[in-house]
Amino acid sequence: MTSLFTRPDGRRADQLRPIDFQRNFTRYAEGSVLVSFGETRVLCNATVEEKVPSFMRGEGRGWVTAEYSMLPRATQSRSPREATRGKIGGRTHEIQRLIGRSLRAVVDLAALGERTIQIDCDVLQADGGTRTASVTGAYVALVDAVCGLRDRGLISASPLREGVAAVSVGLVEGNALLDLNYEEDFRAAVDMNFVITSSGRFVEVQGTAEEHPFTQAELDALRDLAMAGCLDLSRLQQQVLER
Amino acid sequence: MTSLFTRPDGRRADQLRPIDFQRNFTRYAEGSVLVSFGETRVLCNATVEEKVPSFMRGEGRGWVTAEYSMLPRATQSRSPREATRGKIGGRTHEIQRLIGRSLRAVVDLAALGERTIQIDCDVLQADGGTRTASVTGAYVALVDAVCGLRDRGLISASPLREGVAAVSVGLVEGNALLDLNYEEDFRAAVDMNFVITSSGRFVEVQGTAEEHPFTQAELDALRDLAMAGCLDLSRLQQQVLER
Amino acid sequence: MTSLFTRPDGRRADQLRPIDFQRNFTRYAEGSVLVSFGETRVLCNATVEEKVPSFMRGEGRGWVTAEYSMLPRATQSRSPREATRGKIGGRTHEIQRLIGRSLRAVVDLAALGERTIQIDCDVLQADGGTRTASVTGAYVALVDAVCGLRDRGLISASPLREGVAAVSVGLVEGNALLDLNYEEDFRAAVDMNFVITSSGRFVEVQGTAEEHPFTQAELDALRDLAMAGCLDLSRLQQQVLER
Amino acid sequence: MTSLFTRPDGRRADQLRPIDFQRNFTRYAEGSVLVSFGETRVLCNATVEEKVPSFMRGEGRGWVTAEYSMLPRATQSRSPREATRGKIGGRTHEIQRLIGRSLRAVVDLAALGERTIQIDCDVLQADGGTRTASVTGAYVALVDAVCGLRDRGLISASPLREGVAAVSVGLVEGNALLDLNYEEDFRAAVDMNFVITSSGRFVEVQGTAEEHPFTQAELDALRDLAMAGCLDLSRLQQQVLER
Amino acid sequence: MTSLFTRPDGRRADQLRPIDFQRNFTRYAEGSVLVSFGETRVLCNATVEEKVPSFMRGEGRGWVTAEYSMLPRATQSRSPREATRGKIGGRTHEIQRLIGRSLRAVVDLAALGERTIQIDCDVLQADGGTRTASVTGAYVALVDAVCGLRDRGLISASPLREGVAAVSVGLVEGNALLDLNYEEDFRAAVDMNFVITSSGRFVEVQGTAEEHPFTQAELDALRDLAMAGCLDLSRLQQQVLER
Amino acid sequence: MTSLFTRPDGRRADQLRPIDFQRNFTRYAEGSVLVSFGETRVLCNATVEEKVPSFMRGEGRGWVTAEYSMLPRATQSRSPREATRGKIGGRTHEIQRLIGRSLRAVVDLAALGERTIQIDCDVLQADGGTRTASVTGAYVALVDAVCGLRDRGLISASPLREGVAAVSVGLVEGNALLDLNYEEDFRAAVDMNFVITSSGRFVEVQGTAEEHPFTQAELDALRDLAMAGCLDLSRLQQQVLER
Repeated sequence: MTSLFTRPDGRRADQLRPIDFQRNFTRYAEGSVLVSFGETRVLCNATVEEKVPSFMRGEGRGWVTAEYSMLPRATQSRSPREATRGKIGGRTHEIQRLIGRSLRAVVDLAALGERTIQIDCDVLQADGGTRTASVTGAYVALVDAVCGLRDRGLISASPLREGVAAVSVGLVEGNALLDLNYEEDFRAAVDMNFVITSSGRFVEVQGTAEEHPFTQAELDALRDLAMAGCLDLSRLQQQVLER
Repeated sequence: MTSLFTRPDGRRADQLRPIDFQRNFTRYAEGSVLVSFGETRVLCNATVEEKVPSFMRGEGRGWVTAEYSMLPRATQSRSPREATRGKIGGRTHEIQRLIGRSLRAVVDLAALGERTIQIDCDVLQADGGTRTASVTGAYVALVDAVCGLRDRGLISASPLREGVAAVSVGLVEGNALLDLNYEEDFRAAVDMNFVITSSGRFVEVQGTAEEHPFTQAELDALRDLAMAGCLDLSRLQQQVLER
Repeated sequence: MTSLFTRPDGRRADQLRPIDFQRNFTRYAEGSVLVSFGETRVLCNATVEEKVPSFMRGEGRGWVTAEYSMLPRATQSRSPREATRGKIGGRTHEIQRLIGRSLRAVVDLAALGERTIQIDCDVLQADGGTRTASVTGAYVALVDAVCGLRDRGLISASPLREGVAAVSVGLVEGNALLDLNYEEDFRAAVDMNFVITSSGRFVEVQGTAEEHPFTQAELDALRDLAMAGCLDLSRLQQQVLER
Repeated sequence: MTSLFTRPDGRRADQLRPIDFQRNFTRYAEGSVLVSFGETRVLCNATVEEKVPSFMRGEGRGWVTAEYSMLPRATQSRSPREATRGKIGGRTHEIQRLIGRSLRAVVDLAALGERTIQIDCDVLQADGGTRTASVTGAYVALVDAVCGLRDRGLISASPLREGVAAVSVGLVEGNALLDLNYEEDFRAAVDMNFVITSSGRFVEVQGTAEEHPFTQAELDALRDLAMAGCLDLSRLQQQVLER
Repeated sequence: MTSLFTRPDGRRADQLRPIDFQRNFTRYAEGSVLVSFGETRVLCNATVEEKVPSFMRGEGRGWVTAEYSMLPRATQSRSPREATRGKIGGRTHEIQRLIGRSLRAVVDLAALGERTIQIDCDVLQADGGTRTASVTGAYVALVDAVCGLRDRGLISASPLREGVAAVSVGLVEGNALLDLNYEEDFRAAVDMNFVITSSGRFVEVQGTAEEHPFTQAELDALRDLAMAGCLDLSRLQQQVLER
Repeated sequence: MTSLFTRPDGRRADQLRPIDFQRNFTRYAEGSVLVSFGETRVLCNATVEEKVPSFMRGEGRGWVTAEYSMLPRATQSRSPREATRGKIGGRTHEIQRLIGRSLRAVVDLAALGERTIQIDCDVLQADGGTRTASVTGAYVALVDAVCGLRDRGLISASPLREGVAAVSVGLVEGNALLDLNYEEDFRAAVDMNFVITSSGRFVEVQGTAEEHPFTQAELDALRDLAMAGCLDLSRLQQQVLER
């Protein structure tokens, strides 16, 4: 059932939160971007390693992979560290696999050469949408790392085919909303994440209805919102990279 | 690029593999179904436990959860056991979370009462689509477990709102295909899994393009294939449950 | 103290349960046998790998080893998965070591060549005697795997010196019984497992009296029962392999 | 094939190594015995805890259990610590379960009262037979712990029904030998361990033929050797306890 | 041997790096301080939990504890995550125990009441001295958390007896230096860490000579440097807290 | 506040407990010393391995490292084994790193050649000061292992630059005491451990005030006690090595 829903921060249904990319946030990483989607802040560091996983050795192709973690007090109440619990949870596994796949979809691994770009996404503050902010910030860090390789003469052409960004959408009290914050996410009957390239093609589609299955019309409305949102994010990525 | 593609087993693009449900496959479980999607065979056992996880205690609501595993030699070459490796991999985590969410979406947890239904999906033989076969078979095992509760007078009305089934779809050489076997899955540029209720509403949508992002038109075509496939599966579930 | 004891399923004291071997139960394994000892059912899959453990490399000898696991709901109440608990329990360790040793005792490892046969015994349903059913079924799967090697011309002569089978015996209310089911096993004061070759020689003898130590006369009676039982099992293995 | 075999230390085939029990080896444990079987030395400490495992609570019965470990340099070459490897190996599991069962077989757990006696067997030096030395020494430490309970008035009658000891036997070049040292054990075609009460009844029988199955006549010969050896050990335990 | 040594950043031997404290760096934690010692940056978050560890329950006293971690790319080359390796290393253990002890030394745990203050120190960028920056920043976060408790009326008087700060000192080519950066630390023959209260008393003294043991005169010189350095840090903490 | 304090065993404040070194305590290790500091007894075994950790390979330098463990019943009440808990605790990590660093400080690793000396310190009985007894005993075992290398002609000159010993000191009711036993350690406001070479130079200084920070004068008094104590220990090591 649809009801009139006022977003906690007064945004329109199809409006992104304030988006920010702070490049060179740390000194040592080959790419280091602090991305903000509103109050959600993720540090995305890219590391270039001149080797590939053993199962790929000698094939002349590169690899891009990602790890994801939340600082224990990124959230309103503290969560135990996965290092202390001795294992990585299912949610973390899902997210880091998603980030890796999303980036690889726009990279020509042969053109990258036999090296790995390892992305670390560490959530400093979480207000919903950490995985989509991670993908979106990781792409900017990836571009910086790739530019470094070109500047050092290790590659000639860019292995990046196009850009990639991600955004969440959801149904809250029957309203299709773009870029949910934590409060909205908590109240959403349906939660979807889209990863979309700068040319408007889909890399990942993930939607879940924990309690209330959704109709085809709702699915299509969410898809449209996400396509427009990712297009905006691609433009913002481009702007920050041109500085 | 689309080319004429002949499926290895001669099926039409929109045709399911032979589907079979063998109820009461083992003696002790409250529901026990060996489901086959072609050569993929998954044993789905449902266990009723008269308790809920500690975070839910005293709320009067029930819980449905799932675990998933492959026998080491379910596949063409042997995979090490997760018990031997000492931890559960990311893929397994993803799948068992998917199965649990899919079933909970059609269960009225309050009507279930303060008890847990634990589903174990163990893949005896894997030829693609093990997660969708798991969801589809698990639903049948869940119905059997719920009927047992009713027969023993522990619940009066059924907590099941409707049925649920799952199917994979994918793009192979530009063709949208239903219910991919392993060989097709291996060659697919895009792989999607849909979980859809018997009334045609969406519970889960998961799509991944490892290398080639896909267009909106392709997304819509895959969605339509999956809706028709899940409708067929729902009918087959109903038939076997009426025996 | 000995009392008249009627077996739950009406068997004579020296009678095996109905024994069945279903060969080629799954498609991919080099040997795949579903063995039944009454209601106990174990899937025994044999995998041939063209390598040996590192400590044996370059010696020209092969290896045979085994892993054992129970599906969580093989039993009357559900047991947690060892993969979920993150480690393999002591009982599992004992059983898988026993299966491996039992098979190696009848294999000429030099004649096998520098390859490993890995046996996976997965208990689908457990009603007592899962380790003895595992050994007995694993031998049949091993023969099938070895025949496959010969058919492919990888070995010329069979590396199998003779057959091997296993059976449990026990003292229940003073009666020496062959091939205990779960109910009998639960009530047994003494529980023994024998692994015996087709020529009637001993590979493993394991006997435990949790509460009541047993006399030499009782030990000898149990030994005689087991010898006759294994002889029967060897004949049944031979029959199924000749089909 | 039997050949004339001279034991490395000149013993007769049916002769134990020099056996020694050093009581009160450490200060704090309720029973503390350093047992020697020749060069094999095991420190057996018994701890009394006024609680039982949770699954036994409120039943008024006690529990006896054991842990076993080797110091890394107990052996000729160093073995990694199980704590460092992060898990306990299969062999350790087998041995500690054996020690616990062996002791419980001679204890009236109801007479012990709702408390646990925890035995720790730590091998300081290993020259074969560490598990049999552990059982034999652990019994003496158990008696000391039980006497302490009686001295403090916590129990009135002894919960010990009789004594228990263990010994290894084996076939080396066709000779049945008692109490094998490491060199003999290494060369043995068959290795058996017997746990036998002071009244000559069997608690555990474990025999393994890694390569050469053995006949019934050989089994019977080993059994006779072990019975005589354990009788001797029971006498030696009695003597040291009477001091 | 002492030689003239010019510090890489031109500091005097007894000079701290530029020190900065950024309070309220994240939104949710009860205290959140980004501390900088030159290029070393550590995020110190304080969480108040209204419970204590089980071993302290019902005693009416509080607890202060800490966890420490480095982001993988805090350093010049990437280090694997401890969560991924499945365990926390020895160095991490040492550091988090040090931070906890250092803070507890200035807290009246009874005055804190039966609650825990959990400090998380996450190193965003590491250029030497991460543990001393952690202690020094954690104290400021602790004060903020304690003030929050007072503002909410949960405690009346401050449980903080005095301030605490930490600094590293070391011998580089015979020169006693204050607050070593990574390059200096790498070249230091002796590395010491002091934790000192604002009244000039010692909480922790840790000194290590990996290769070249040091004399009493050198120990005393390092001690004096550290005392002056911690006094400066205490003044800076006070200043930032008065803002 | 200082008060008159009588030590439980009547020692003077600056007096060591009875110190004893029993060489060749076990047969197989290249050095094996049972060291006693009063009732504290630690078995220190040195193992020579003709290899170095992978990160040092090919550099022509050796390595010295240590592991430390307590038997479960070394203490007044039993502690769970770290192997059973599946991980090594923070305290153990700290101690074994300390022992390794302490020994390396007096070894010329280049003169040792490309081999590892692995020290295992296993505490059989603990009455305070187990880490300082471990360092002190480990040095004697190290000397024995090094002499064995020289006797076998594998090295010509000794790689040991000088001796090393360790002792604890602490403040108990305001009194600076040498070599604390468990009861004193439990009551100490400040606990320090010093590792000092036979020439009176410092290798490690570790001091902790859990509740009451200490003054510079107290630090200096503790330092002086420790220097005298280590000098005595060096003499005792020398004496036992000359036997």
